[in-house]
Amino acid sequence: MRATVMYGAGDVRIEHVPDASIDAPTDAVVRVTGAAICGSDLWPYGSKPADSAPQRMGHEFIGVVEDLGSAITTLQRGDLVISPFLWQDNTCDYCRRGLTSSCRHGGGYGHANDGGQGEAVRVPQAAGTLVKLNVAPDSSLMPSLLTLTDVFCTGHHAAVCGHVGNGSTVAVVGDGAVGLSAVLAARRLGAERIILIGRHTVRTDVGREFGATDVVTERGSEATALVRDLTGGNGVDAVLECVGHADALETAFGAVRDGGYVSRVGVPQYTEGPIGMDMIARNLTLTGGVAPARAYLEQLLPDVLDGTIEPGKVFDRTVDLAGVPAGYQAMADRQALKVAVTP
Amino acid sequence: MRATVMYGAGDVRIEHVPDASIDAPTDAVVRVTGAAICGSDLWPYGSKPADSAPQRMGHEFIGVVEDLGSAITTLQRGDLVISPFLWQDNTCDYCRRGLTSSCRHGGGYGHANDGGQGEAVRVPQAAGTLVKLNVAPDSSLMPSLLTLTDVFCTGHHAAVCGHVGNGSTVAVVGDGAVGLSAVLAARRLGAERIILIGRHTVRTDVGREFGATDVVTERGSEATALVRDLTGGNGVDAVLECVGHADALETAFGAVRDGGYVSRVGVPQYTEGPIGMDMIARNLTLTGGVAPARAYLEQLLPDVLDGTIEPGKVFDRTVDLAGVPAGYQAMADRQALKVAVTP
Repeated sequence: MRATVMYGAGDVRIEHVPDASIDAPTDAVVRVTGAAICGSDLWPYGSKPADSAPQRMGHEFIGVVEDLGSAITTLQRGDLVISPFLWQDNTCDYCRRGLTSSCRHGGGYGHANDGGQGEAVRVPQAAGTLVKLNVAPDSSLMPSLLTLTDVFCTGHHAAVCGHVGNGSTVAVVGDGAVGLSAVLAARRLGAERIILIGRHTVRTDVGREFGATDVVTERGSEATALVRDLTGGNGVDAVLECVGHADALETAFGAVRDGGYVSRVGVPQYTEGPIGMDMIARNLTLTGGVAPARAYLEQLLPDVLDGTIEPGKVFDRTVDLAGVPAGYQAMADRQALKVAVTP
Repeated sequence: MRATVMYGAGDVRIEHVPDASIDAPTDAVVRVTGAAICGSDLWPYGSKPADSAPQRMGHEFIGVVEDLGSAITTLQRGDLVISPFLWQDNTCDYCRRGLTSSCRHGGGYGHANDGGQGEAVRVPQAAGTLVKLNVAPDSSLMPSLLTLTDVFCTGHHAAVCGHVGNGSTVAVVGDGAVGLSAVLAARRLGAERIILIGRHTVRTDVGREFGATDVVTERGSEATALVRDLTGGNGVDAVLECVGHADALETAFGAVRDGGYVSRVGVPQYTEGPIGMDMIARNLTLTGGVAPARAYLEQLLPDVLDGTIEPGKVFDRTVDLAGVPAGYQAMADRQALKVAVTP
C-alpha cells in the first residue's frame, strides 16, 4: 500500500510500504477514507535530522474496517469508524478515569507503526479505540467528524483543564487549528469573553465565527497589556496556550488573573519554564497536556452530528495522497490552515 | 515597644521601635499574646545581605485589640483576635472568590510594617482581617489556634489545590511544620494513603501522629522509586511540595501519577523548572501558592476548637521576645521544629 514517510525536515514522501495487517487478535485494519495533517506534524517537518530513521506519518483518520482480529466482537467489517489519535484499551484504570492518553496498553500511530496518512492502518486495541460512525462515508459532516480524531478534542481539553465554564473569561494564544478549536470549545462550554491572540486575519476570522469576542494581533508584552485592558486590568480566568513556544507561555502567564489557569496543549518546544515566585504569589495553575481524545469523542459527537458545532471549518484544503508533501509545505508556509487528506 | 528586627543572615535583634499606632481609620492595634517563627522566616535568616535594609519580622500572631480606627464597627477593644499572615479587606472580588491572598487592598506584615514577633502590631484592614476568638487567652488550644495564622492553612491549601479528597493517595515532600500540616490536612480531607518524605525521625513521628501511613527517608530518585513501589508503580494522585527547593519539585514530578497534581506551598528557591514534554505527555498539573489563610480560617476553626485536629503539635519550643534570636537559630539548626513566641 502507499503511505506517507518523513525522512527529514522538509522531506516528506509517498512510498510503497507493507500492507497493513492483523498482528494481534486485538488489532483491526482500517482502510482510510479521510485523514489530516496535524500541526504537531510540522514540528518534525521543521527539525527532523536527515540522518534519523524515516518515520510513518499521520494520526488523524476515519475509515472502513477491512479486517478484524479474532478477539474483536464489537465491530464488523465494513463499519465506518473514527479513531482518536492514540490507541487505548478503554478498560484500564487510567482509561476508566478518563485519561485514555495514559492507557496501560496505549500507543501512537506513525513512526514504526502505520500512520493515518496512508491507504490503510493497523489499529491496535481496536475494540477500545475505534468508534463506529452511523453516517455515510460521503457525509458533509466528514470534516467536522475528522476534527474529533484530535484537533477539536485537543482544543476541548485545553478548555476543560482550564476550568472554562459559564461566564468564564478566556484568552486563547495561537490562531492555528488547535487555537481555533479551543475558541469553539470555550464557547461551547459557556465562556462569556473569548480573546483570541493571533495575527492571521483569515484565521482570526474563523476564530470570530467560532465565538471569539475579541482579537488581539499583538504579541508578547503588548498582547498581555491588551488582554489586561480588555479585562479591566485583571487578566482572564484561563489562558489556553495552543502554540508550544516559550514566548506563548510567557504571554499566557502575563494574561491570566490571579488564581487562574494556564492550560497548555501545544507541544512544548522548551524543557524549562518560569514557575518561580510570581506563579506562587498569584496562585497560578499550570495544566493541560495530551488530550484524552477517546474519552471526549463520544461526548462531543452528538454536537457534531446535529450541527450544533462545525469544528471542520478549520480545514481549508484537501489533497490526495500524492498531494500530502505539498500539503505539509502549505501548512508550514501558513498558506493552508489545516489540510485534509483523501487517499 | 520591643520588636524583632532582622539585619542580615543570622543577625536577628530585639530592639525598641516606635509604638504600634492607628494610621488609618481601618487600622487596629493588637497587643500580641502569642506569635511564632515561620519556616519562611528562615530564608532571609539564611541569605539576607548585611547591607540590605533591616526588616521587622513575624506574620503569625494572636492578640488583644488595644486600639481601633474610627471605621471599625465589628471589633471592640479587649477582643482576643487572630490574624492570618496577610491582611485583606475581605470584601473585594478576589476576597469574595476566596483568594484573599490577592486582595485588592491587601498586604503583609514585617519589613517596613509592624511584625508579629513584637509587643504589638498595627493591623491594616482590620475589619476584614481579624477574627474574634471566643476562648480565654490562656486556653490550651492556643498553639493549635496559632497554626491557623499560617502554617496549618498553608498545609490545607496544598491539599485543597492538589484536589485531595476521600480515598486520595498523597505524598508530602518535606517534614517541616508545613509538610506535617499538609499531612494533617490531607488526612482531614479524607486521604487514604499519605506518604511523608522526610528524614528527621522526631518530625516524621509527628507526621505519623498526624496521619502519615508511610514514611520515606530517602531523597531524590530513590524517594521517587519508593513512592512508586508503595503505589503499585503508579505514583500518587497528588504530591504536596512543602520545601521550595528545586530538588523537592523534581521529586514531586517523579512521584505523581499521570493526570495528578503537584501542589506547591514552599517558597520557591528557583525561577525556572522542568515543565516540558514529560508534564504534557502525562497531563500533570502544577498548582498551589500563597495560602488564602483568611478564607480558610473560619472554615478550619471549628475542628480546632472542638479538638478534632491538633495542628499545634508542630510547636516544640516556646521563647519570650528576648529568646527570639535563639529561636531562629534553633529552627535553622533543626533543633526546633517550630518556635512559639510569648512576648
